[in-house]
Order: sequence, then structure tokens, then C-alpha cells
Amino acid sequence: MINRLISKIRKTNAPIVVGLDPMLKYVPEYIRKAAFAECGETLEGAAEAVWQYNKGIVDAIYDLVPAVKPQIAMYEQFGIPGLAAFQKTVDYCREKGLVVIGDVKRGDIGSTSEAYAVGHLGRVQVGSRLLSGFGEDFVTVNPYLGSDGVKPFLKVCAEEKKGIFVLVKTSNPSSGELQDRLVREPGEEAAGGNADRPLYEMVGGYVAQWGEQCMPEEGSYSYVGAVVGATYPEQGKILRKIMPKAFILVPGYGAQGGKGADLVHFFNEDGLGAIINSSRGIIAAYQQEQFAGFGEQGYADASRAAVLAMKEDIAAALAQRG
Amino acid sequence: MINRLISKIRKTNAPIVVGLDPMLKYVPEYIRKAAFAECGETLEGAAEAVWQYNKGIVDAIYDLVPAVKPQIAMYEQFGIPGLAAFQKTVDYCREKGLVVIGDVKRGDIGSTSEAYAVGHLGRVQVGSRLLSGFGEDFVTVNPYLGSDGVKPFLKVCAEEKKGIFVLVKTSNPSSGELQDRLVREPGEEAAGGNADRPLYEMVGGYVAQWGEQCMPEEGSYSYVGAVVGATYPEQGKILRKIMPKAFILVPGYGAQGGKGADLVHFFNEDGLGAIINSSRGIIAAYQQEQFAGFGEQGYADASRAAVLAMKEDIAAALAQRG
Repeated sequence: MINRLISKIRKTNAPIVVGLDPMLKYVPEYIRKAAFAECGETLEGAAEAVWQYNKGIVDAIYDLVPAVKPQIAMYEQFGIPGLAAFQKTVDYCREKGLVVIGDVKRGDIGSTSEAYAVGHLGRVQVGSRLLSGFGEDFVTVNPYLGSDGVKPFLKVCAEEKKGIFVLVKTSNPSSGELQDRLVREPGEEAAGGNADRPLYEMVGGYVAQWGEQCMPEEGSYSYVGAVVGATYPEQGKILRKIMPKAFILVPGYGAQGGKGADLVHFFNEDGLGAIINSSRGIIAAYQQEQFAGFGEQGYADASRAAVLAMKEDIAAALAQRG
Repeated sequence: MINRLISKIRKTNAPIVVGLDPMLKYVPEYIRKAAFAECGETLEGAAEAVWQYNKGIVDAIYDLVPAVKPQIAMYEQFGIPGLAAFQKTVDYCREKGLVVIGDVKRGDIGSTSEAYAVGHLGRVQVGSRLLSGFGEDFVTVNPYLGSDGVKPFLKVCAEEKKGIFVLVKTSNPSSGELQDRLVREPGEEAAGGNADRPLYEMVGGYVAQWGEQCMPEEGSYSYVGAVVGATYPEQGKILRKIMPKAFILVPGYGAQGGKGADLVHFFNEDGLGAIINSSRGIIAAYQQEQFAGFGEQGYADASRAAVLAMKEDIAAALAQRG
């Protein structure tokens, strides 16, 4: 799947992933009204609104980008009907040929992590049959529980040719509370400042190590990627070197403040190795001044225009690095 | 809700939570067969088997324990039908008067964490209505993203009188890879060994700090608890002191190797402050030598017997502490 992602990035010339994180306040009123008229102001109504909204965006952008990243929390908030809309969105995006990165940030231990892995990336044994649950292509994984929590995902990825992105340095303001702490291994000499490094670098080291056994071919990118926020370009530069074979999924572009020029160091010299996410900046483009001219009815066209603008911004930044 | 949990612990005299983590291999064959006969070897069939199995256990133990802890991964592996069985289990347990701790280990940033919080503990706005998604009483939360990821849960907990348990030191063998690393704050002097402390102690410090603003009454237990594995009794002793007002949810008893005697230091002098989880040891008791006499048909009675044995083990250990 990592090779498929790379080939789609090359084909579209867009190292971009569109975050499908639908909050109801982004959904145009006419779509909400129609959904509530059909299903009432219920969880089913909210889920229907979200699904119709997503479908419009996907139809407008699927030929421009390699991948989408639905954020499951935005669906899970609407309970079972919301999760059914998540499932429908995943299925529809895959039908349209998009690579689907489930932003689920799951992570547990042993058989529990395995259950998440089979549910989202693999197939679960039911009697004599193997059945697919959600069926994304990649998921994001939280590393706080250590290798026990990550390895079951790697096993399923190897079987199913899928991939993961491990949270390393997240884009939010307080990500440093844990992730920036200077760490040393227990038993290491108290050798002063030089022996210490931030926790995110250590996690980056694990990502590189896990990835060594997870390459479709020798020397290729591994299917163990990392999440590093666009809001931390300096850390991105360091992590790029620590994990040369890991794809970096970069949230935080646009609405969270990251700009094209901040992103160049997330890429390798081959122009690959990173994929930049924008969510609100694209799916709610029609609510921004720049794209307000499209109006509510044109929200999907506004999203398309926002993708094109983002593509240009990133291409220009990469060309300037040249 | 923390006060309700405490009053139920006192009433049942059992600081015990039963982990409802149903793997299909735990479900008696006659239940699986009936479910597959009704729904086929489908996700729906698996979900029906899990639900019938859970119901039998809950009916057998609900008067003995204060709480249950369904592990959502074990349901999520069966996709939407599995999650519907999770929901049904949560609802049924609450009907039976049990406190429900959703072991969801969610955690994200800002509005995304808020979406998880409203979906699991609160109510989501749909048009003019506030609707409940999954409706657990507590959930477990992963702290890797820092305060940004935790505070939205605290907000919802305050509004809805619910609670969380933050992962601090997990029970699995590799939990130390991140959690045991010696850390210092950036900018702190490189003052040698004494200035350093393991990451889990630092997270324990955050739990104590978050909890200060989250007490139903002054001096009571806070509704910000912590997860600390029974497999790490020494660390539990230290964390007990760092977080005197936090309830500790202790997994790892029984099947994972923790014993009653290991657990005494997780409790405060008032005999409260900890709740011990057992999953497989109770729900699959009939598959163990000690309770094999109950047979498949008696799986629920075996679970009841296992709860009674666990209750005795813990009471004896606490009595011995004096």
C-alpha cells in the first residue's frame, strides 16, 4: 500500500491528503436541512448530513489527490450511525481509487491492539470465514504503550499489505508536555546534556527500527510511517534524518498555521517521503474569505479550488528548495 | 460519578471491575452456534454471540461488583455490528446499575478529543437537540498528546458528572519503552541522576494536577483517575503517593500475572483509591482448570465463582496489610 500511495502521489503530483473531519458546523445548511427533513434531528440525521457533505467533496477532489484521511472521532461522536457514515465514506473513497488513511489513533496491548488492527486494516475470523470490518488502507497509531502496542499492527500490515503512521510529534501546542521531554535510557550514565534527547526523537528511532522489517522491497520506503506536525518544522528536519525510510504524515497545514515553506524539510531529496494533510482548510474552504465566492451551494467546488491552491503552494516551496 | 463508584465499592465490598473483553474463542460453542444459525457466519453473527455471552455474565455478576469495563477493541474488530453490541452491552450494564468504564484509550487534540468526549461521555448537538452516543460513565484516555488532548474530556466530565482514567503505567511487558524513560523538563539543569524521574511519574504528576480542579467536593477523590498495571507494584506504590486523590484503575490481575498481595499499595489507608480489573480470569473462568467443573453451559456461574474468589483474594491481602 505504501507503493500504491507513492505511485498515486507521483501521478497526481500532489503530496497531499484531504482530511475528512466533518463537523456539523462545516456542513452547508441546505444539506443539513435535507438530512434532518429525512431523518429528523437524530444521530441518523447528523450521519446522513455528514455523508452527503463528504460525498460532494470526494466527487470534487478525487482526481486531484492521492489520499483522504477521515478522522474517526468526528463520526464516533454520533454513535453507531456516525460510525456507519465513517464506514460508508471509507468504502466510497476506496471505490473512487483514493488511498484511505483512517485517523483513529488507536493503540493498546497484545491481543487488544491486534483486534484494532484486524478491525481497521485486516480481516477477523468468524467461524470459517475471514471478514473485513472497516477496511482502511492505513491507520494512525499511538505509541505510548510501547512495542507491544505497535507490533500487532505490523503483523496485520504485513499480511494485508497495509500500513500505519505512528504518532511521533503531534501538531498541537501542548504536544511538548510529554513529547519534548529530554529522556535517557534507564541505566545510562548521567553524562550531562549530550546524552539526552527529546522523547519524540526516541520514538522516531523506534519508527525507523520497526520499519526496517517492513519494506515491500529492500531500500524502499517502509510501511511504518510517522505523524509529525507542520507546526514544528525544526523537529521535522531532525526526524526526517532519524527516519529516512519512513513516510511522514504532516498535519497542521493551513488552519493550524503551517505554511508550504515550513514543509520542505519533511521531504527527502527524492521529493518524496512526506504527505501533507489539510482538513478544515479544504473541506470548509467555502467558509473562508478566499473562497467565499463559491457560496454554500458551491462548497465542493470551493474545496477543489482550495486543493489546487495548496498544491501550488507546496510545489512552489519544493521548487524553491530546488 | 466517582462518588457513585465509591459508594458502590463500599456497598459490594469489592474494589473490582469485570473486564468485558469478549474474544470469540471465549464464547461457549453453543452460544456461537445459535448466533451463527440465526445470523450466519457474519459480523452480525459474531456480534450476536458476543452480546448473548456478555448478557449471561452480567446477569450472573451484577450484584457482586460495582463496575464493568468493556474493551471497545474487542467489539470494533467486528465493525459496525460489533460496535452495536458494545453499545447494547453498555446500555444493559447501566440498566443493571453497574458503573461502566469504557476502555477506549482515545486521545487526540482540541475539537477532536472533544468529539470523543461527547460521543462516549456526553451529548452531541444535532440541530436543536442534545443526543447521547455511547454513554459510558468513565473512559480511559491516552496522554501522549498532552493537556490539549485531555482537557476536552475534563470539560465534558464536569458538565455530565462523568470521569476518566488516564494511562500512566500500563501493565504490558514493553510499557517501559516510553513510560520508564528518565525525563527532565527542557531547560532544567543537567543536574545528574537526582533531577530525573521516569516519564510515568511525570504523567502521574499531571493526573494529580488535572484532578485538583476536578473534585466533586473539596478533599474528595477526583474524577481524573489513572491506569497503573498490577504487574508493576513498586511503581504503583510511588504513583499512589504522587496522586493521592486519584482513583487507580489496575489491570493485569489474574491472567496477566498480578496477585492480590501485589495490589495492597495501590490502595490508600482508607481502603479506597483503587479498583482492580480482571477480564479473561472472570469472563473465561470456565476454560480454566479451577472452574472447569462448571462446563460450557455453566460459564456464567463459573464467572460468578471467579468473582467471589477474586474478592476473597483481595480482601485477604488488604486485611493482612492491616
